[in-house]
Amino acid sequence: MRKFDAEILVFNGTVITMDTANAVIKKGYVAVNGSQIEAVGTLAEIDSIKGKKRIDAKGGIIMPGLVNVHTHAAMTLLRGLADDLPLMTWLNEHIFPAESKMDDHQVYQGALLACAEMIMSGTTCFCDMYLFTDAVARAASYAGMRAVVGEVLFDFPSPNYGPIERGFEYTQMLIEKWQAHELITIAVEPHSPYLCAPELLQQASNLAQKNELPLIIHLSETRDEVSNLQAKFSATPVQHLANLNVLAPNVIACHCVVLSAEDIRLLDNHHVKVAHNPESNMKLASGIAPIPTLLGNGICVGIGTDGCASNNNLDMLSEIDTAAKLHKVNTLDPTVMDAQTVLKMATIDGARCLGLDHIIGSLEPGKRADIIILDTHKPHLTPMYNPISHIVYAARGSDVSTSIINGQLVMEDRKIGTFDWKEVMQAVARIAATLAPEN
Amino acid sequence: MRKFDAEILVFNGTVITMDTANAVIKKGYVAVNGSQIEAVGTLAEIDSIKGKKRIDAKGGIIMPGLVNVHTHAAMTLLRGLADDLPLMTWLNEHIFPAESKMDDHQVYQGALLACAEMIMSGTTCFCDMYLFTDAVARAASYAGMRAVVGEVLFDFPSPNYGPIERGFEYTQMLIEKWQAHELITIAVEPHSPYLCAPELLQQASNLAQKNELPLIIHLSETRDEVSNLQAKFSATPVQHLANLNVLAPNVIACHCVVLSAEDIRLLDNHHVKVAHNPESNMKLASGIAPIPTLLGNGICVGIGTDGCASNNNLDMLSEIDTAAKLHKVNTLDPTVMDAQTVLKMATIDGARCLGLDHIIGSLEPGKRADIIILDTHKPHLTPMYNPISHIVYAARGSDVSTSIINGQLVMEDRKIGTFDWKEVMQAVARIAATLAPEN
Repeated sequence: MRKFDAEILVFNGTVITMDTANAVIKKGYVAVNGSQIEAVGTLAEIDSIKGKKRIDAKGGIIMPGLVNVHTHAAMTLLRGLADDLPLMTWLNEHIFPAESKMDDHQVYQGALLACAEMIMSGTTCFCDMYLFTDAVARAASYAGMRAVVGEVLFDFPSPNYGPIERGFEYTQMLIEKWQAHELITIAVEPHSPYLCAPELLQQASNLAQKNELPLIIHLSETRDEVSNLQAKFSATPVQHLANLNVLAPNVIACHCVVLSAEDIRLLDNHHVKVAHNPESNMKLASGIAPIPTLLGNGICVGIGTDGCASNNNLDMLSEIDTAAKLHKVNTLDPTVMDAQTVLKMATIDGARCLGLDHIIGSLEPGKRADIIILDTHKPHLTPMYNPISHIVYAARGSDVSTSIINGQLVMEDRKIGTFDWKEVMQAVARIAATLAPEN
Repeated sequence: MRKFDAEILVFNGTVITMDTANAVIKKGYVAVNGSQIEAVGTLAEIDSIKGKKRIDAKGGIIMPGLVNVHTHAAMTLLRGLADDLPLMTWLNEHIFPAESKMDDHQVYQGALLACAEMIMSGTTCFCDMYLFTDAVARAASYAGMRAVVGEVLFDFPSPNYGPIERGFEYTQMLIEKWQAHELITIAVEPHSPYLCAPELLQQASNLAQKNELPLIIHLSETRDEVSNLQAKFSATPVQHLANLNVLAPNVIACHCVVLSAEDIRLLDNHHVKVAHNPESNMKLASGIAPIPTLLGNGICVGIGTDGCASNNNLDMLSEIDTAAKLHKVNTLDPTVMDAQTVLKMATIDGARCLGLDHIIGSLEPGKRADIIILDTHKPHLTPMYNPISHIVYAARGSDVSTSIINGQLVMEDRKIGTFDWKEVMQAVARIAATLAPEN
């Protein structure tokens, strides 16, 4: 038995590794050095490890941090501003007017609040699309969160960069500024086929390919989108992107609610990744994405919350519960989207969507230490026959006690160590007063 | 301004009254004396009240306790025992064998654990069906929870009472034992049209009518149930009950997933109450109950979690979020099941289902003091444009800080005062070891 020192030793919990064998270690530990996982094993081996910082999981669950593959983090600013409205009323009369008032400072505070919420509910990595993206990257970096972020690009003038040429310049600035950062990955993010001209989509695709970056896009979210694209380009949104040579393994297609068999074949052939956002799709009445079919075709699917204006939270534990249940009732088959499959989507498959599965998504030696602990000493997590069932069907965001990201202890016993979230809450409350419709 | 003393004064929060005007008091208070609400008003009036016990809601939400209209509380014992299986495999190979081993003591501990979970997630009243119901009533009473409970009746021998005649004797015993209790209401509870012969259903109906008690029954939960009843009685389950003269205003029909237009007309004509259990119906792949249609017909619908084996929690805040979203996507209309409607279902309409709306379900002088406080000083509840949106779409069970039931402070700052839930968790863990399939 190799003896070694660990900067952080998490022990005395059931370790859900999410490795390729789905190994679960009943009384296990994870040892961290620097930003990396040094070792994962059973309690029997633990005497050989000297842990500088020892974290007792107290019989709880030790697992990879959750990966939220689709967010608009700063939309925390608009949480509950407007609900239960027809999509176009909601967007045109509430969301867009509020967003037109935003600036870099507001987005920074909104994103930082989102980081607090995400850390406190077990997310360690998120993939974001929004305005003033440098602020989102700064917020994630300050909070100590891993993030894939990009500036949203579209045909009309942006409250951030103005005309689209400036949008590409801004994206180029992001790429250069953040390229060496441990936690931040920049993506190229054209909003959608319906808000982006073919030239924009192709330019975005070229930029992403050239820099080997993810390309993130909303795709086939609503029936209206599909019929409008059909009318304009005689192609579904997916076919339209295929025709423009945009579909590729680096593409993360968000939503994919309305898909034809041909669309699914195209996504599969081009190894496109899919971000599934069940709660947002439900709340906006967009529809139910054919996820079991996508999985059956071997397409890689991650899970995201979407923004707080259409959810209205960033709680991945709630999202995976909903995902598991929604597809059962939609297919009238209780065996689809079993707990293991859904947990995979929220961890290693989410990481794969983002092109980060070589460094995160599972607890394995050599990977970055993105680790959370669930406190299972709660009435609603008792008894425990099966920890994976509990994670998916019974646990809540508030059960996450501790979070380590890239080897840094960002939360311990529900206390965030990297920043003062109460100050951020106050700042956001002040901003919200200026965004409310009466202003 | 009337001056008076209050035993408990809850103040400094947004009071969601759920009265007939849906009044919301921005900076309000609720004053409690004995088991009753003495007054509800604005902070401006508060100097006239001397509060013996003063509870500062700290700007949070003060609202009626949630009413869970369909539970099998003691099924906490089976939480996560088996998931993601075909219904008959799940029931016959996992749930029924485990239940056959249960006794009064086990049900008591399971129900008490459920009470801990329910109190800690904002439920103050639940409506239960299970075996060994006296144990459930004792557990609720000991925990200080309001409950409607009844012994499940069916054609085959029960692990509790044996043959059905003894089931009616047991129910009669419950009625007599608990009739004067402040918190407990006994109901007559034939399991379902498919497990109860016509004579059983009629005898149960007569007993309920004679004693003016609720009659609680599973009804039209699955397509198989409907086709089997059709084959046997040439009637849908609803028609079958109508033919037997069982349908009446005291009937709480649980699930009602598969309904014909004629079924809906019958439920409406007989003023039957409906318990909607969206998460269980999703997880078991039963289907989606036509709730917007029922509401459109003026039928009273409450919300329940069902048992922990098919959910797997008793969190009403999660359940109402799911209810609001599920029907939007099912009808492809984002305006159905708006937050106010859903919150009504979980409070005053739930109380109406149970025949208790004259005493609970809203915060009004003269009603019993069943009150909860939500702590909104959390990242995921910031900012707050609309408290009702937050309750339905963003809050979690763990945001409930304080609970008062029948004037008794059962939880303050998340500490349950009525019993030691950690001891109960240990007892349940021991019981679970005996119920696991390998035993």
